[in-house]
Amino acid sequence: MGIIVQKFGGTSVGSVERIQHVASRVVEEKEKGNDVVVVVSAMGKTTDALVGMAKEICSQPSKREMDMLLSTGEQVTISLLTMALIQVGQDAISFTGWQAGIETESIHSNARITNIHTEKLASHLNEGKVVIVAGFQGMTASGEITTLGRGGSDTTAVAIAAALKAERCDIYTDVDGVYTSDPRYITGARKLSSISYDEMLELANLGAGVLHPRAVEFAKNYQIPLEVRSSIERIEGTYIEEEASMEQNLVVRGVAFENEITRVTVFGLNNALKGLSSIFTTLAEHHLNVDIIIQSQTEQNTTNLSFSIKGHDLDETLEVLEQHKESLGFTHVEYEGGLSKVSIVGSGMISNPGVAAEMFEVLADNGITIKMVSTSEIKVSVVVDEDLMNKAAQVLHSSFHLDEVKVEEITL
Amino acid sequence: MGIIVQKFGGTSVGSVERIQHVASRVVEEKEKGNDVVVVVSAMGKTTDALVGMAKEICSQPSKREMDMLLSTGEQVTISLLTMALIQVGQDAISFTGWQAGIETESIHSNARITNIHTEKLASHLNEGKVVIVAGFQGMTASGEITTLGRGGSDTTAVAIAAALKAERCDIYTDVDGVYTSDPRYITGARKLSSISYDEMLELANLGAGVLHPRAVEFAKNYQIPLEVRSSIERIEGTYIEEEASMEQNLVVRGVAFENEITRVTVFGLNNALKGLSSIFTTLAEHHLNVDIIIQSQTEQNTTNLSFSIKGHDLDETLEVLEQHKESLGFTHVEYEGGLSKVSIVGSGMISNPGVAAEMFEVLADNGITIKMVSTSEIKVSVVVDEDLMNKAAQVLHSSFHLDEVKVEEITL
Repeated sequence: MGIIVQKFGGTSVGSVERIQHVASRVVEEKEKGNDVVVVVSAMGKTTDALVGMAKEICSQPSKREMDMLLSTGEQVTISLLTMALIQVGQDAISFTGWQAGIETESIHSNARITNIHTEKLASHLNEGKVVIVAGFQGMTASGEITTLGRGGSDTTAVAIAAALKAERCDIYTDVDGVYTSDPRYITGARKLSSISYDEMLELANLGAGVLHPRAVEFAKNYQIPLEVRSSIERIEGTYIEEEASMEQNLVVRGVAFENEITRVTVFGLNNALKGLSSIFTTLAEHHLNVDIIIQSQTEQNTTNLSFSIKGHDLDETLEVLEQHKESLGFTHVEYEGGLSKVSIVGSGMISNPGVAAEMFEVLADNGITIKMVSTSEIKVSVVVDEDLMNKAAQVLHSSFHLDEVKVEEITL
Repeated sequence: MGIIVQKFGGTSVGSVERIQHVASRVVEEKEKGNDVVVVVSAMGKTTDALVGMAKEICSQPSKREMDMLLSTGEQVTISLLTMALIQVGQDAISFTGWQAGIETESIHSNARITNIHTEKLASHLNEGKVVIVAGFQGMTASGEITTLGRGGSDTTAVAIAAALKAERCDIYTDVDGVYTSDPRYITGARKLSSISYDEMLELANLGAGVLHPRAVEFAKNYQIPLEVRSSIERIEGTYIEEEASMEQNLVVRGVAFENEITRVTVFGLNNALKGLSSIFTTLAEHHLNVDIIIQSQTEQNTTNLSFSIKGHDLDETLEVLEQHKESLGFTHVEYEGGLSKVSIVGSGMISNPGVAAEMFEVLADNGITIKMVSTSEIKVSVVVDEDLMNKAAQVLHSSFHLDEVKVEEITL
């Protein structure tokens, strides 16, 4: 039998009782004859409580110290889960990120995994133990504790699965799979039985929230099949693999949306050739993620540049731009907050060129003004006013027939 | 100027507000021109909360996993205190036990420090930073997280002071110094201005509670002056150094007492020669601390052996003895709980041979039956019934004139 990596998020381990339930899910997998590695997040509201204390002390705590603080959350979970497994007679051992050999780059609060030294994990698996690893955290080569940023535990799980050549990585969560859209807001949203890495990647990047995009990327690169499934109910979830075998006839597979988008516009860039790369290199150096980018030529041979960022990155973005105003060479910056992004995703779009046009038409018919557009081979994103987000998502979900259950899916 | 190590216990860092207050005490020391290392414990009730969760899962959690769990407590404190220092403009950096280079033996829950690799601490001190270290924890050579047992943060502080050749180690606590006896129970108990290592060692071992004996031992071995002082009030505490300069005329310096003592008696040891060492070697291998030992010869050339242990070690002690009954060669074991130990301590006893006799007389005059006796050069301990403990301590405190303030101390 192979190695299965299971990941349980914060809600799934939110209390001692929940942790005991997780232990039973782990034992079920182990009893199938598999070697099992379990990656866990901090218990429920722990991270919020820790952040709350830090914020009482200062509004902008040192990122290094935040990593020091937050990484305790998963450490609590791994020890409790290990105790729960030992208690039911399953030999187990816990490891922090640094003990598990998870090496990251030297960036605090949002580090990427650079290497996983698997010797320790492998040797304990060989002894028949379930190995419990703290998600979300790692260590730099110089021994500093780092965290992986939002959704970091997903990344830990998939990276370990890749490093150990696991058979599958199961992402246990409080939803029971990947949906065509968020069922809390969109009428008719349905669970998908399977979806491709690329589609999931677009959905994850677009704020679908069930899985972190970095984790999906890892899974795609190392061809690790994922299953997103419920930690409570014992039902099939959604498989994420190279080619989603079902529903190939659906051009659009999902509608994703996220709010708190801000559009920043840089005016009068005087070096159209170098200005563009300089700005985004500078922002990247500060780990500020830019999403949609629109460039427009003006008279006097200068360029205006708009891009979208997450609202919480606005202050730092404006600061960084101001600091480099001279070298970047622009006149001034404006921004507009209160925006949202709505996207349609589906591999079928590659062979269906009219999809973007259809999307714009549906939105126009419903009186929704598009502020920015971005497309890839398998998705189209538009930026709209925040208060039109749900409406836009709902009309797109219906127009592209995502609420109609396919026969293949039922007979699965 | 030199290096000062400050240690703040759990109550002193029990809330964000307290942590901010501690930051101000740290800055005061730093502003005197000293390099400052701060060792902290887990916040107030954190450890209890963590233990509570573990106990919900199992009554006898794995010691390795308990270390994993409990070591998060100090990690939270170090990051918050560091943030508080940075917030008031004092550059600072936090380190967990393993990051600070604190190497321990491979024993979980009660490990001893074997080495401190000070390079990292020293280099950050040289950069003018205050260095904040998690107390109570370390790492084995193979990368396992260990904890140092009760009072472990004191030990961390003194060990770091020794390794860095610090000028002084200040133990900040919720009492303002070392007293002649516990003022909560003993009328007339007074704060001492100074006390010798040896006296403190006896008092610490006897449950005086302000300082862990291992920490005092370290301080004595490396001649690190200690000061026990209040973390709240800005007043002088008690100095602990090689020769306590004041109050040399006091024969008895303190009265200590502790309850939950159990007397275990092993009957019919058939090898008087080897039996004694075998029993205590076996118990030591299981890290069971034995205190007072009394051996008595019986007819038939067998030996009975009584010793006192902490009540919470009783179950394990009985189990270990039972397991080794054959090889140790004894007939049966009996025990008596509900006992207490009361002790008088003072360097002056060396030259005052009548002190023990005086103690026994005072107790007899007050109708207190002595169950076991143990003496060293500077202390006499007796085991009495638990409900006579306070009375015994009080009459000894008065008889040895500990409630009379000495002129030297007032004029200090």
